[in-house]
Amino acid sequence: MEWLIKESGFDKGKIELNGNKFLIGNGYMGYRGTMEEFSKEQLVACNLSDLYDKVGDKWREPVNAPNGLFTRLYCNGELLSVLSSDIDHHEQELNIRNSTHRRYTKFINSSGIKVEVRAERFVSLYNLHLICMKYSFKASESCDVVIETGIDGQVWDINGPHLINLETYQREDNCIFHAITNENKNSLAVAERIEVSFGNEVYNSNSYNSFREISSNIEVDKEYTFIKYVSVFKDRDEVEDCVSAAIKSNISAVNLGYDKLFEMNKELWDQRWNDIDVEIEGDDYSQLALRYSIYHLMIIAPTHTDKTSIPARGLSGQVYKGAIFWDTEIFMLPFFLNTKPEIAKNLIKYRCNTLDGARRKAADYGYRGAFYAWESQDTGDDACTYFNVTDVFTGRPMRTYFRDKQVHISADVAYAIWQYYLATGDESILVEGGAETIIECARFFYSYAYFNMDKNRYEVLDVTGPDEYHERVNNNAYTSIMVKYTLEAALSAIKLLKNKYEEEYISLNLAIKFEREVDNFKDMLEKLYIPSPDKETNIIEQFDGYERLENISLEKLKERIIDPNEYLGGGNGLATTTKILKQADVVLVLNLFKDRYSEEVKRSNWEYYEPQTEHGSSLSACVYALLAADLDKVDWAYKYFLKTATIDLTGDSKQYVGTLYIGGTHPASNGGAWMTAVLGFGGVKASEGQITMSPKLPESWTSLKFRVVHYGQKYSVSITKNQITIKADNINQKSNEFIISGKKLICNPGQIIEIGY
Amino acid sequence: MEWLIKESGFDKGKIELNGNKFLIGNGYMGYRGTMEEFSKEQLVACNLSDLYDKVGDKWREPVNAPNGLFTRLYCNGELLSVLSSDIDHHEQELNIRNSTHRRYTKFINSSGIKVEVRAERFVSLYNLHLICMKYSFKASESCDVVIETGIDGQVWDINGPHLINLETYQREDNCIFHAITNENKNSLAVAERIEVSFGNEVYNSNSYNSFREISSNIEVDKEYTFIKYVSVFKDRDEVEDCVSAAIKSNISAVNLGYDKLFEMNKELWDQRWNDIDVEIEGDDYSQLALRYSIYHLMIIAPTHTDKTSIPARGLSGQVYKGAIFWDTEIFMLPFFLNTKPEIAKNLIKYRCNTLDGARRKAADYGYRGAFYAWESQDTGDDACTYFNVTDVFTGRPMRTYFRDKQVHISADVAYAIWQYYLATGDESILVEGGAETIIECARFFYSYAYFNMDKNRYEVLDVTGPDEYHERVNNNAYTSIMVKYTLEAALSAIKLLKNKYEEEYISLNLAIKFEREVDNFKDMLEKLYIPSPDKETNIIEQFDGYERLENISLEKLKERIIDPNEYLGGGNGLATTTKILKQADVVLVLNLFKDRYSEEVKRSNWEYYEPQTEHGSSLSACVYALLAADLDKVDWAYKYFLKTATIDLTGDSKQYVGTLYIGGTHPASNGGAWMTAVLGFGGVKASEGQITMSPKLPESWTSLKFRVVHYGQKYSVSITKNQITIKADNINQKSNEFIISGKKLICNPGQIIEIGY
Repeated sequence: MEWLIKESGFDKGKIELNGNKFLIGNGYMGYRGTMEEFSKEQLVACNLSDLYDKVGDKWREPVNAPNGLFTRLYCNGELLSVLSSDIDHHEQELNIRNSTHRRYTKFINSSGIKVEVRAERFVSLYNLHLICMKYSFKASESCDVVIETGIDGQVWDINGPHLINLETYQREDNCIFHAITNENKNSLAVAERIEVSFGNEVYNSNSYNSFREISSNIEVDKEYTFIKYVSVFKDRDEVEDCVSAAIKSNISAVNLGYDKLFEMNKELWDQRWNDIDVEIEGDDYSQLALRYSIYHLMIIAPTHTDKTSIPARGLSGQVYKGAIFWDTEIFMLPFFLNTKPEIAKNLIKYRCNTLDGARRKAADYGYRGAFYAWESQDTGDDACTYFNVTDVFTGRPMRTYFRDKQVHISADVAYAIWQYYLATGDESILVEGGAETIIECARFFYSYAYFNMDKNRYEVLDVTGPDEYHERVNNNAYTSIMVKYTLEAALSAIKLLKNKYEEEYISLNLAIKFEREVDNFKDMLEKLYIPSPDKETNIIEQFDGYERLENISLEKLKERIIDPNEYLGGGNGLATTTKILKQADVVLVLNLFKDRYSEEVKRSNWEYYEPQTEHGSSLSACVYALLAADLDKVDWAYKYFLKTATIDLTGDSKQYVGTLYIGGTHPASNGGAWMTAVLGFGGVKASEGQITMSPKLPESWTSLKFRVVHYGQKYSVSITKNQITIKADNINQKSNEFIISGKKLICNPGQIIEIGY
Repeated sequence: MEWLIKESGFDKGKIELNGNKFLIGNGYMGYRGTMEEFSKEQLVACNLSDLYDKVGDKWREPVNAPNGLFTRLYCNGELLSVLSSDIDHHEQELNIRNSTHRRYTKFINSSGIKVEVRAERFVSLYNLHLICMKYSFKASESCDVVIETGIDGQVWDINGPHLINLETYQREDNCIFHAITNENKNSLAVAERIEVSFGNEVYNSNSYNSFREISSNIEVDKEYTFIKYVSVFKDRDEVEDCVSAAIKSNISAVNLGYDKLFEMNKELWDQRWNDIDVEIEGDDYSQLALRYSIYHLMIIAPTHTDKTSIPARGLSGQVYKGAIFWDTEIFMLPFFLNTKPEIAKNLIKYRCNTLDGARRKAADYGYRGAFYAWESQDTGDDACTYFNVTDVFTGRPMRTYFRDKQVHISADVAYAIWQYYLATGDESILVEGGAETIIECARFFYSYAYFNMDKNRYEVLDVTGPDEYHERVNNNAYTSIMVKYTLEAALSAIKLLKNKYEEEYISLNLAIKFEREVDNFKDMLEKLYIPSPDKETNIIEQFDGYERLENISLEKLKERIIDPNEYLGGGNGLATTTKILKQADVVLVLNLFKDRYSEEVKRSNWEYYEPQTEHGSSLSACVYALLAADLDKVDWAYKYFLKTATIDLTGDSKQYVGTLYIGGTHPASNGGAWMTAVLGFGGVKASEGQITMSPKLPESWTSLKFRVVHYGQKYSVSITKNQITIKADNINQKSNEFIISGKKLICNPGQIIEIGY
């Protein structure tokens, strides 16, 4: 039962939230948890990865495919819909073990006929283009039934419509919908085919819909079932003819049949869970929330391509422009690195593949090197606008400095690449663009930084750190420490290439002339100013002048709020002139560099900044959880863990900033939940062939089991209150070193280690 | 008639404006143009220079002295006041030739008795502590009259009350008011004495008032007159006992008598006008406006001390905290430099005397050298707050960056000192603190600037230029060019000391160790980035990124305004993200450095920036006037000249920013009017013993006559449409060189030059 998310009864107010909560997906597409009879007003969406479009001067955003699952059932001419019909019973269910969505509804029509509808759907892992659905119904009285089913081309768009030149027709038993995108004229096709054994079928179409009407007089209490196969192709998938490819995909689906496809999908998901599952004993709620978090990471993971990465709202819709933020590198990557490094590599390579976009952005602002997009889409050009929030008091757009001042994004990318290398030992990433990317990021920072002649040091000025309530600050601790790491990584990468990949070293230097930067990087690394812990208080000032800001409690600050949706940051925001933070900033960097700071420093800063943090970002809670675990503040860690892990279950997150809708799933929090469980409570720290573990389980957890992969070697770990058991997979090729309670242990292939802690 | 400002009739709505418009003063104090029967509600104020006070956490502001002219006339028990009585006739008049204020009112009391009141007042130039008044009245019927006259201690305070320990008593025929200030316990005394030859006099007092009641039955149509002498002393005037000093001052006044004092004052003003008057033939309105502007500069000029300078609202009240801004150095100083260099020296020395305050401010922000106060008072510490404007939409204080980011103030100070030296040749200023001040300002900029390693240049980052609508910008043209000038001046001053004042050089170096900075200054001077004219457009970008801002017309921007008092700058201001400027910025610096830029550059920038300027500051119009004159755009120059010269006559200026009252006089505009007339239309440019003239008179002006002093030598200049006549004073000691139409002419003492142009 820890695999089922279920909701009974129908509540119109939850349509939006449940669309997110019951999302299914396979990395290629996400299909929202909406009812088959819904349309765009209920935010039905088959959200596609790696296809973006821009209309006029509106935001560029991802394209939603036409809805191939569209199905409407009429009983004696009367539409049955949870939106308008009387309902005797309604249930919606998501099986997160295999990403299967089910609905069951017992309608009562106006003449008292009870019609039960069941529908089951999944997005195939076997064929990423394929969505399958089984739709069944039966009635308490014999009646005339009409089913409209096919493709609904009127899709949810925030800044659309994105599709033009719509074509709807039937071909080889398929309903076809073909269109191209407005901006780049990308071709997109949906083919839908059904298996049905009752009624008369008549094809129908209009400019937006390609569908069938199936008419039948049905018998009392007899269950009628039909199957739908929907295939989605876009020309960016490197197919010549999207329509033919979709038809072919459907033929293959029909040949395998629904049950076989369902089984194959289940099997593939079972294989996945072998590597990714985390088992918690003693706390069912945490267990469910954590698995649900892992589920959400997996349904949006690009297993098939390195041309895209994971957007901040996953594949739940067009919110945040379907753009990839630093969320992926800092909050999601650790999960993949430690469980599915091949997916981590795709995420990393996406950044290498969009390096030119980052170069364009840097050049546009007058810098050298690579300034990554704050909001990255297919090309790596920045989709972020300069006015991101609407002022609730004047209705005017508000200038924010996300795009031009959150320079830490380039450091986050470089950090992620180097983390991948440290966790996998996989040098190929460096040769295949990783080193170039890191060097270009370092080059950007060299050109961005200034030298303070008076203090003989480099400074990183005029930046916005993770705490976006304080824009355009100088010497932000998070940013500067990350910049330093970028310089270190760049020099290390250069050294590694030089020593091991001479040819690549030479050709890369020919291409980007990095040798001339080496002395620059070394000089900057040596003289870069890093805000350091105050000698008396241990506090690292978040940025120059932070200590001079108004010292006010979060509670008092909130009393000043006039409008519940007012933005606390920006030019005149309530938090801007105070010490109140949007999210972890210093605490985040202490968490990333746990080993570089003393426990006292980490403790002092956690305790100092925690009461000042508003957690206006869903990225914040897990950071406090992680460092709390490190500091043995297990109760605090548990509190923040729950906040993080349940965000998409409860829907308890900000839905609006100013007048802007920001709802959707929260994969960064999902990643944070996994990090807190495994890296926090499990106390796992892995780097360069060495895995340290110092567990600190929450009181209610009697055991914690998970898998971890390091340097390509896989392990099953089981932790109880006083013992750690590590089992190396039999097929491991090499050994890694484990450090537990100060002891070094080698864990050879197939070996089991049991040790108290 | 060109010397009289007059207004007939009484309009309650103009009380505030007329208080400014009819101001009299002598540099020690300003007395607002209010009626004798008024009190603090009508903003009666005797505003004192060089005495400030702070109450609680409210703004520090100047102290208004108790009102020694307070006089109320009762006719048959009925108060006669323009505020409440019927009025047959009312006139208020200011003679700007000698700073004499007159009022005449014909009251009609409730029983129809007509009572005529005349009052004449002046603030003495002979004895700066003394105010004199002659008050006369006569009635159309015999009646019982009571006069309350004495000192009203309930004064206008924006952030008061500033006076504590109030004492009111009578001594040696004087009404005495003594108190101390709240913050620094400065002693302040007012003594008032009258000469009266009618009625019974009874002394009266309460906690706030020290006055007499004079009762008399008066005859029909007979004029009754009494004289008031009011003396004001504060312990900062370096007197031991303020009360005794005030009494003594009154004794001396009585001995001389009103008429003699009036004559002496007139004589002293006549002497002044000899040096400062500018005569315009052909345009009476310009003539009056310009003389009125000159008048306003002279009534607030500190002739007696170098411990204070001229506040931005003169001595018209407490607005802008009675603080000295850059207005003095950049907008008022040229008038004094060219007419009354001894006053200019006082203004300059005030900055030298407050150097320690500027050092404290720099140190407080972590810099070296001298960072002058944006709003400077007696100590030179910054009176400017961080929240200067109230947001009209939320009622919340708005963070502005005047105090911490308008670093150009230190350059303005250095520039002014060097300008003084160039205009006078007076090296004593350098030895007496001027060189030290300039060096400390340069040192501040060296510590403030950053070096861009990538571009091999120094940059001045994160500043607010004169255009305060764009805060925290990088490489603001005005600021950077002024910083460069500061470095030049510092190196020149050091060289001069070294060559001519070895002893002072050594002791100054011992004190502030400037020798170690010389290489720094030279390096920075060589490599400082100065925004330069674009090769194609000639435009100097106001700051980095200005060109990327929204291009909108001023008219369109104004259409976006929701609240008439909303502030256009600040974090979310309407102008902030557009190219609309508050005031001249690039055009100002082109004006200050006319000789360093080609005519094409000046013209292109004037034409580019002029339509984008909102003139939200009263400093703006004269700058456009001056550069327009330089560019032979005489019609434009004339238009902006009138705007500048009439600002205090018409009262046509911003009275509120957000919810803050900012009314008062505008000495910077007054200075701008003189500059436009003499430096602009007269085309005078004087430096280092050389005076260039290239006049361009407005169409209606048939001649322009003015006085100019350079290197201590005085000249009368008369310009017609095609001829310039220069007459060197007979008592001149040396000759200066004149350059007219490219010809060099030496003008020896007593010599007259006539030359066509």
